Amino acid sequence: MRAGFAAFMATLQVPAGARSSVTALGDRRALLVEAERNSRPGAILYFHGGSYVMGSPETAMALTASLVVRTGMRAVSLDYRLAPEFPFPHAIEDGVSAYRELLDQGVEPRSIALAGDSAGGGLCVSTCLQARSEGLPLPAAIVTFSAGLDATRSGDSMESKNGVDPFFTRESLRASGALYLGGADPHQELLSPAVLADLTGFPPLLLQVGANELLLDDSTRLAKRARDAGVDVILDVTANAPHVFQGYAGQLEEADQALDRAALFLKQHVVSGEAGADSKNSKP
Amino acid sequence: MRAGFAAFMATLQVPAGARSSVTALGDRRALLVEAERNSRPGAILYFHGGSYVMGSPETAMALTASLVVRTGMRAVSLDYRLAPEFPFPHAIEDGVSAYRELLDQGVEPRSIALAGDSAGGGLCVSTCLQARSEGLPLPAAIVTFSAGLDATRSGDSMESKNGVDPFFTRESLRASGALYLGGADPHQELLSPAVLADLTGFPPLLLQVGANELLLDDSTRLAKRARDAGVDVILDVTANAPHVFQGYAGQLEEADQALDRAALFLKQHVVSGEAGADSKNSKP
Repeated sequence: MRAGFAAFMATLQVPAGARSSVTALGDRRALLVEAERNSRPGAILYFHGGSYVMGSPETAMALTASLVVRTGMRAVSLDYRLAPEFPFPHAIEDGVSAYRELLDQGVEPRSIALAGDSAGGGLCVSTCLQARSEGLPLPAAIVTFSAGLDATRSGDSMESKNGVDPFFTRESLRASGALYLGGADPHQELLSPAVLADLTGFPPLLLQVGANELLLDDSTRLAKRARDAGVDVILDVTANAPHVFQGYAGQLEEADQALDRAALFLKQHVVSGEAGADSKNSKP
Repeated sequence: MRAGFAAFMATLQVPAGARSSVTALGDRRALLVEAERNSRPGAILYFHGGSYVMGSPETAMALTASLVVRTGMRAVSLDYRLAPEFPFPHAIEDGVSAYRELLDQGVEPRSIALAGDSAGGGLCVSTCLQARSEGLPLPAAIVTFSAGLDATRSGDSMESKNGVDPFFTRESLRASGALYLGGADPHQELLSPAVLADLTGFPPLLLQVGANELLLDDSTRLAKRARDAGVDVILDVTANAPHVFQGYAGQLEEADQALDRAALFLKQHVVSGEAGADSKNSKP
């Protein structure tokens, strides 16, 4: 399954203008993806998709590099642990460890964004929730592409888009979800933030999703929870586009346009505040 | 009341880089607002705010010029008829007449966007609904700032944000709304599109609104109706910003950022297709 997913994702076009190198973050392998030109300060901590059971920084390279070349910011794409070998909450632990290490390196939270696709979009939100619980300062922004945000699978779109969604079926989501849950109760905020999380104090959110997706109402309900918590939130729905259509940049106009909007959002909210990048913010 | 509104709106900063001149469109006076530099094809038909009883192209000049200088597109800001002298549906008739005249001038619908604030945001949607009813081709995009989209005033935010909204009270909305209704039943799609309109075939929508507004759920409900109709829609909510905060460009960072997002959206969806602007599309 993992090999098949990797082969499929390898068909996506990785844009020119980014270089990658292997690094580590919080004891996990990661890919550092940097712009070859027009770089600017700021870091994107990227979480790949794959239902928490598949995928790697390499499979999300088209998405990660698309954000990097558009923003000039560097991305660190985390190879977090996967189920069923490492079910919930291992991925979140890895996400928080990686974020904490960025902070320990002297990167200011206001210059860090979290971004991710599908399960990785959910991991952005759960990592931020857990970081808040641990008393860490929160990042500057979160961007998600077709995020999975509800392990209870209770959104209206789970019914209304079943058979409409060209990518997922309810059964396929149930099967991968069970591997990630590993027997855990889905009724907890780290697994179902769209249903249960109080987002008070969260940074601005950009939630992009396709209107035909089973996961549509994961994003619409998280957007409502953000509004209710006084959090800036953009719910950006493209009608006739498949799950994580941003992967089709270079081939599908809607993908490039959505990524351009995501890049503007990141540049608006992620400010230069890295040690060394600004003398006023440098460590002694 | 009109003089007070005009005096208040005159305190907003009009950005440099735009020039305006008086014109006419569909037998109504209008202001043509053009970029002094970096102009590009495309026309924004702008509808000012003022609860359908106040305001003019002049009172919305800060907003209109902000879009013009950011996009390079020209705007035509319509001096539509106001209540109580001219209640519903006069404003909509003027909106459709203006749009129809743009088409008659040879401007292609794909190079026209509708934009407006407050009541003018509602007028964008109602004008598009009426244009569709009359068989006209629809414009390329719609952008609204804190739109009024429900004359039945039935949104949850009419309760939950009462006393929270620093700009409107339920009573102030009721009073101005009664003048516009002029006895008409608010339960019709041209008056309450957020409750009643089928948006099938609509162009992409960008709905910007503040989270503390009585009118918040006018936009959230229209966004849901757009999603249900297979229409691209961005619901862009800023948490701590007043009604039509985009008017504070140059003073409030959130205003400039929201306008930058609106400009990107307009540039993504409004394509060059004007007679004369592209030889392939020129009339013989």
